[in-house]
Amino acid sequence: MKQVFVIKIGGNVIDDPEALNSFLEDFHRIDSPKVLVHGGGKIASRLGDQLGIKSNYVDGRRITDDATIDLVTMVYGGLVNKQVVAQLQSLGCNAIGITGADANLLPAIKRPVKTIDFGWVGDVEAGKIPVNRWQVLLDNDFIPVLAPLTHDGQGHMLNTNADTMAAVIAEALSVQYNVRLLYCFEKKGILEDVNNDASVITHLDRNSYATLRQEGKLFAGILPKLDNAFAAIDAGVKEVLIGHAEDLLQNTTTKTTGTLITA
Amino acid sequence: MKQVFVIKIGGNVIDDPEALNSFLEDFHRIDSPKVLVHGGGKIASRLGDQLGIKSNYVDGRRITDDATIDLVTMVYGGLVNKQVVAQLQSLGCNAIGITGADANLLPAIKRPVKTIDFGWVGDVEAGKIPVNRWQVLLDNDFIPVLAPLTHDGQGHMLNTNADTMAAVIAEALSVQYNVRLLYCFEKKGILEDVNNDASVITHLDRNSYATLRQEGKLFAGILPKLDNAFAAIDAGVKEVLIGHAEDLLQNTTTKTTGTLITA
Repeated sequence: MKQVFVIKIGGNVIDDPEALNSFLEDFHRIDSPKVLVHGGGKIASRLGDQLGIKSNYVDGRRITDDATIDLVTMVYGGLVNKQVVAQLQSLGCNAIGITGADANLLPAIKRPVKTIDFGWVGDVEAGKIPVNRWQVLLDNDFIPVLAPLTHDGQGHMLNTNADTMAAVIAEALSVQYNVRLLYCFEKKGILEDVNNDASVITHLDRNSYATLRQEGKLFAGILPKLDNAFAAIDAGVKEVLIGHAEDLLQNTTTKTTGTLITA
Repeated sequence: MKQVFVIKIGGNVIDDPEALNSFLEDFHRIDSPKVLVHGGGKIASRLGDQLGIKSNYVDGRRITDDATIDLVTMVYGGLVNKQVVAQLQSLGCNAIGITGADANLLPAIKRPVKTIDFGWVGDVEAGKIPVNRWQVLLDNDFIPVLAPLTHDGQGHMLNTNADTMAAVIAEALSVQYNVRLLYCFEKKGILEDVNNDASVITHLDRNSYATLRQEGKLFAGILPKLDNAFAAIDAGVKEVLIGHAEDLLQNTTTKTTGTLITA
């Protein structure tokens, strides 16, 4: 099977022009079909403040109301996405900037209301992803660049978690490709001691993850990312790597850096 | 050759939810590969006002400065484009929302400065359009929906006239397809008397156009659209039709409505 990389970068890279530039050069150099999923960055909050759009939280969880979904559709789907595309194109990388709504590449539903109504937030329906449409793009040298947005199939855009999007794309593509999922973030990998950047855990499997989690050793903020990573592995993704963008992208053949997640 | 429709709608349709809805239903019903190019609408100006972004004009011509290109990239490339895509998808139409930057589908250059520096405004390089990439999309049932934006190949987005974009797309696709270009606008066609909506000119060719133009009979605002239309015809586009969206889209086999442009 052909190898495909699915790579996720967070808002911190988007917010730092130098880091973004350096990341995009590394991304361009990966000599395989590849997919980029990007986070949003702080510009949406800044613009929201200027426009008087208030961030709403219930129980500490952010709510996506009417004004907010329009805001993130503009900023993530327009400004950020097209800036990334224009930069990649300037490097000769055939990026095509889209969302999960485009070509219905990531069918989703508005998150059902249980105790909290999150508003216009999407949960991707992984089983409904049209892999054949992804193949049309990937097999014809289009490089999909996805903003963290989907749609509900009923005419509404939905705010969607970029980590989850990357995981379900990797899962869906695993049917046709040998997929490596890279989560780029601000640390060199999953840390055994959150205060010690040198304490990178080089390998995590289900057992060691369960143990570390039980011992309360892992930083709580990293748990959803790890859950996404293991879900991807369970669904057929070959390898998940978590770490610094430059380490992961510049060593795509050696995989000696970051944290490697396997079953 | 397979038939392809290239259809342009203006900002007035974008600004009117009912008209947009009705247009998109008609668009969806066209039983051929098709491309939609949409204008921007007034929301960019409204949002610009809220953000304190001033519209700059030189000699009555609008200038696209740094703040304005970011604004239109957000609004046209994000909000408007994705709303159109989400609506089309809800109808079962496989829309993919893009700009000329995506997959470098419309290579452009920043308009050279002669007497006026228009800022971040793009002139499409028609001869460089990668028709094979358009074919990948069209022949695999993707329906491209284009916001009026391109890029300069050097990392910058460019504000671009939607009429011109539709014309050059139609021209480029004429090499591989039998292309019909439809310009939808607020009148039933080109009017002989701008104050009489019943005075639609049913057919214009180069000779009759030259005559009417010389006689000063045509509304000045329509001349750039007609110049684009004749340029498209000269470049191999079979037919250009100008008129009301519903007339043009609901009568795609009879072409008895609107103004038909031929050589």
